[in-house]
Amino acid sequence: MLNFTVGPVMAGDDVLRIGGEQVPYFRTPEFSAVMKENEQLMLEFSKAPEGSRAVFLTASSTGAMEAAVMNCLSEKDKILIINGGSFGQRFVDLCALHDVPYTELKLEHGQKMTRDRLYSYNAKDFTGLLVNVDETSTGVLYDTEMLGEYCRQNNLFFICDCVSSFLADPFDMAHCGADVMITGSQKVLACPPGISLIVLSPRAVERVHHAKVRSMYFDLADALKNGERGQTPFTPAVGILLQIHARLLEIKRQGGADVEVARVAAQAADFRKKIKGMPFSFVSESPANAVTPLHPLRGKAYDIFLKLKDEYGIWICPNGGDMRDTVFRVGHIGALTHEDNTKLVAAFEDLMLKGLL
Amino acid sequence: MLNFTVGPVMAGDDVLRIGGEQVPYFRTPEFSAVMKENEQLMLEFSKAPEGSRAVFLTASSTGAMEAAVMNCLSEKDKILIINGGSFGQRFVDLCALHDVPYTELKLEHGQKMTRDRLYSYNAKDFTGLLVNVDETSTGVLYDTEMLGEYCRQNNLFFICDCVSSFLADPFDMAHCGADVMITGSQKVLACPPGISLIVLSPRAVERVHHAKVRSMYFDLADALKNGERGQTPFTPAVGILLQIHARLLEIKRQGGADVEVARVAAQAADFRKKIKGMPFSFVSESPANAVTPLHPLRGKAYDIFLKLKDEYGIWICPNGGDMRDTVFRVGHIGALTHEDNTKLVAAFEDLMLKGLL
Repeated sequence: MLNFTVGPVMAGDDVLRIGGEQVPYFRTPEFSAVMKENEQLMLEFSKAPEGSRAVFLTASSTGAMEAAVMNCLSEKDKILIINGGSFGQRFVDLCALHDVPYTELKLEHGQKMTRDRLYSYNAKDFTGLLVNVDETSTGVLYDTEMLGEYCRQNNLFFICDCVSSFLADPFDMAHCGADVMITGSQKVLACPPGISLIVLSPRAVERVHHAKVRSMYFDLADALKNGERGQTPFTPAVGILLQIHARLLEIKRQGGADVEVARVAAQAADFRKKIKGMPFSFVSESPANAVTPLHPLRGKAYDIFLKLKDEYGIWICPNGGDMRDTVFRVGHIGALTHEDNTKLVAAFEDLMLKGLL
Repeated sequence: MLNFTVGPVMAGDDVLRIGGEQVPYFRTPEFSAVMKENEQLMLEFSKAPEGSRAVFLTASSTGAMEAAVMNCLSEKDKILIINGGSFGQRFVDLCALHDVPYTELKLEHGQKMTRDRLYSYNAKDFTGLLVNVDETSTGVLYDTEMLGEYCRQNNLFFICDCVSSFLADPFDMAHCGADVMITGSQKVLACPPGISLIVLSPRAVERVHHAKVRSMYFDLADALKNGERGQTPFTPAVGILLQIHARLLEIKRQGGADVEVARVAAQAADFRKKIKGMPFSFVSESPANAVTPLHPLRGKAYDIFLKLKDEYGIWICPNGGDMRDTVFRVGHIGALTHEDNTKLVAAFEDLMLKGLL
């Protein structure tokens, strides 16, 4: 199957090879060395400020989002949440669940965030800002530099969910002043799902150390302490951590974060060029590189997903909820090539010939 | 490396093959069918009563232990916790953290649970019992039938952490009356770590549905609801779930749970026979099949672990904390054979010749 979803995505050869090997025992100096290198490479690629730390959770990215809310925010905060889709809503639900006071900055599906919209909220009312940098449900990219400036001016704690944007869109944690960066193993890291990653600025580390967290599993202070010796508090998804290691080294070899971002950007641009004139409308006013959400002008989105899966051996990514019949998404992350785009476009053309698109 | 740890353990060919394949997209009828079969086989192998359910969490087994405490217990309970080692202590810490009232039934490391010890606690004071069926830190097996009778007589809610005992020691959830059974992907299931599994009796399902859980990630009611359609609330460790599927089918093909338990028991018996007369004392008064903790009469336990790793290509399992220098463990789970035992024993003999054991 050719996989154009936004996760799990297709893995490269190194990652697959490690997946087929026995998983080693991990309470060893050898595994600790791997984990310390994983941490260093994550800090390098997220361009984290001096003194930052990275932790690795065996959990979906939602687990990391919840851990960030529980460990970095409290009932004493007042958070502005940019809510432009299902993942923004998830932050809203998490803050509500954990009694973190918040205000929603709601955007329509696909709507871009402008400076005017942002500054119409008086930052002085808030202590922090939560954003899904790529609102993956609609492929809207938010401007982390603009948001960071707003946060800096008003000393807001700045949490960036970069689950699908990390290494897909430019991101400079130190420059934009983000305090928390969250991603997952199955996006641009192109490993199997199972690990989520959190990078914490020195200010975030400080918050973690002072947090009262009613969770053993998501106690990030414990994760940081164990991380000092290259370990985790509990048995992690060791195999996936070794795959992440291979992938981070591959990215480093190929030139680092900027080269990987350029590769994903080119993959997205190639696809968007190739579908020009086809019966789709674009959903996102501010397209992220990881994914192109499309509204098919004819045919139901979910039917097209099923058809491509069952008759063409191609997975695109269906949307859920309200958007099930109106929007599907085409991913540009993982081990995809421009030739793969050509194959997908040929399948679209075939569906058009059959009157299904 | 030859791996005698208690996890990650060595995987069989099917599991390795799947690990080397691309991870498929999972919001599909195909993956739902796999997950439904996973659930049915877990219910079958744990001998769960009619109306039970199984959920799959992308988390270490500690995550599943915490989810069980959060979703099935509350401040209205009073729990008796059998604490005979690090994993018993973990349940104590979890109950303390989540304000679940508890009493500890403390045992020395390696000490067996007797009927007298158990019945010296007046069950009428309690609403539930928590036990690590194999206290993996010391290899002590607790008698689930005896504990179950005590619970039944007094209507106690009965949570069994079977992380390392599931399919290693006989366990009949319906017969012993357990309400919750917890295990992990990296024990007898011999898959990579990353998934923990919880089987819930109808009474436990009822508790889950009435629980007020302050966690999105560990909300088991949400997991149960999604499980009805063979899905999970968040992107799970899809690859490991497919490996679990292959492994459950393999166990089924080979004759089911009892045959697998007999295989692990024979692997343990073979090892214990082969080390007779060697300078070790046994740590456990009530040995579980999954693991043999040994106290070396000469040499430090951790040094022996390092020596075997670095010079013989063999991993045994070191202990932590107080037991670091006095106890190591030899596992009998995963794709190990009697010949592998012979290799380990030969390495022990070599260390004896060198005066290191």
